[in-house]
Amino acid sequence: MIRSGQWTAHTSGLASDHVQGNVVILPQALANDFLRYCQRNPKPCPVLAASEPGQTGLPGLGEDINICTDLPRYRVWRKGEVLDEPTNITALWRADLVTFVLGCSFSFEHALMQAGLRLRHVEQGKNVAMYRTSIPTHAAGVFHGPMVVSMRPMLAADAIRAVQVTSRFPNVHGAPVHLGDPALIGINDLGAPDYGDAVELKSGEIPVFWACGVTPQAALRQAQPEFCITHAPGAMLITDLLNQQLASF
Amino acid sequence: MIRSGQWTAHTSGLASDHVQGNVVILPQALANDFLRYCQRNPKPCPVLAASEPGQTGLPGLGEDINICTDLPRYRVWRKGEVLDEPTNITALWRADLVTFVLGCSFSFEHALMQAGLRLRHVEQGKNVAMYRTSIPTHAAGVFHGPMVVSMRPMLAADAIRAVQVTSRFPNVHGAPVHLGDPALIGINDLGAPDYGDAVELKSGEIPVFWACGVTPQAALRQAQPEFCITHAPGAMLITDLLNQQLASF
Repeated sequence: MIRSGQWTAHTSGLASDHVQGNVVILPQALANDFLRYCQRNPKPCPVLAASEPGQTGLPGLGEDINICTDLPRYRVWRKGEVLDEPTNITALWRADLVTFVLGCSFSFEHALMQAGLRLRHVEQGKNVAMYRTSIPTHAAGVFHGPMVVSMRPMLAADAIRAVQVTSRFPNVHGAPVHLGDPALIGINDLGAPDYGDAVELKSGEIPVFWACGVTPQAALRQAQPEFCITHAPGAMLITDLLNQQLASF
Repeated sequence: MIRSGQWTAHTSGLASDHVQGNVVILPQALANDFLRYCQRNPKPCPVLAASEPGQTGLPGLGEDINICTDLPRYRVWRKGEVLDEPTNITALWRADLVTFVLGCSFSFEHALMQAGLRLRHVEQGKNVAMYRTSIPTHAAGVFHGPMVVSMRPMLAADAIRAVQVTSRFPNVHGAPVHLGDPALIGINDLGAPDYGDAVELKSGEIPVFWACGVTPQAALRQAQPEFCITHAPGAMLITDLLNQQLASF
């Protein structure tokens, strides 16, 4: 349905046993810098696959993936600005484009819910709350910027359990990077996320913060490459891999 | 040296690769209740070994352990009160006594330090701070009481790492039971621990709480058995097991 253009919405909750991925497509000239940026920042930028230049398939992630058609919606960027949100990029494809697929929190959210933990933003049908932090990423070439984190409110005992569950998934952001006082990582108002929707923090709960796959989009915005393509927020690449295949133990 | 009475002090830092244990010695008539109490409260009371009645060896923990001589210092209890602190209990031994050895936080502290985490009470040569909480244990027969926890102050990122490291050691209290606001588990003043020494909480740190092996001693105090023997605080049984043998993955 996605390939044929019948499904153009976000992919949260679709094929929930399957790994979904953030997508970044860059000209080859920038691809090495970007790969080094990911290698230096594995928690926000866990690379699940990097294609050969011009290759539209991703055999490590699925038998017949075509990156030009298999996302519900794309974002086309020029010099750090979003120009268009097409549902197919076949007409834009070039022989020098390299595709990166990065792990996504949908995988660990599925594991958290299977472990019996409740996620308020999922229950309320909201997007997760995301914030730019004072934690710098490690620069590589033109890529640099702040780490972006996603936040989920939890009781302390659930936060401890969530550390255990998400530690099993280092390829999809892994364990939290912070919990408790938001000011310690440069977040001054939990009620005003930089991306996504605000989610209420109830009495006795602490905010738990995970490195977020929006981090590379923040770096792209600052690097202002001449041309690149990403997925549209929430409209991920659904792969043939199962989340459980990523579990480290 | 312990067996011959030359070492009568606490065992913190001795043979640090080796598992040390809390010891509870009870008349057989109470042993079943106590074992059920431990089974129902595995985080504060992780049973490493339970002897046959009258048996002074613990073959699962070491080749030639003699429980009557191999602790630096014992506590002899009558009706919930400590009567004596001998360094040898050979003269008190009876054919109906059953020995329980419970896991101890020294094992996970060793793992935390090997992982590069700093423990303030260890660096300052203090005993860890311990608190009675509002978390009830599950009763069994005459045994009941509050969970006792130990507290270690940490930066949030270190607390997350500590959850990972201690989760590998379910037989020695495992992951924390709480972190953050002490009032949520009935602790009103961190500066006034119920056992051990107060330890400073520095700016940006959160208190991290683990279930503590003092919990069964609190239950013994309430159950007031006619007679029992425990280790003296900090003067543990050193076993032949290696801490790494307890690691679950």
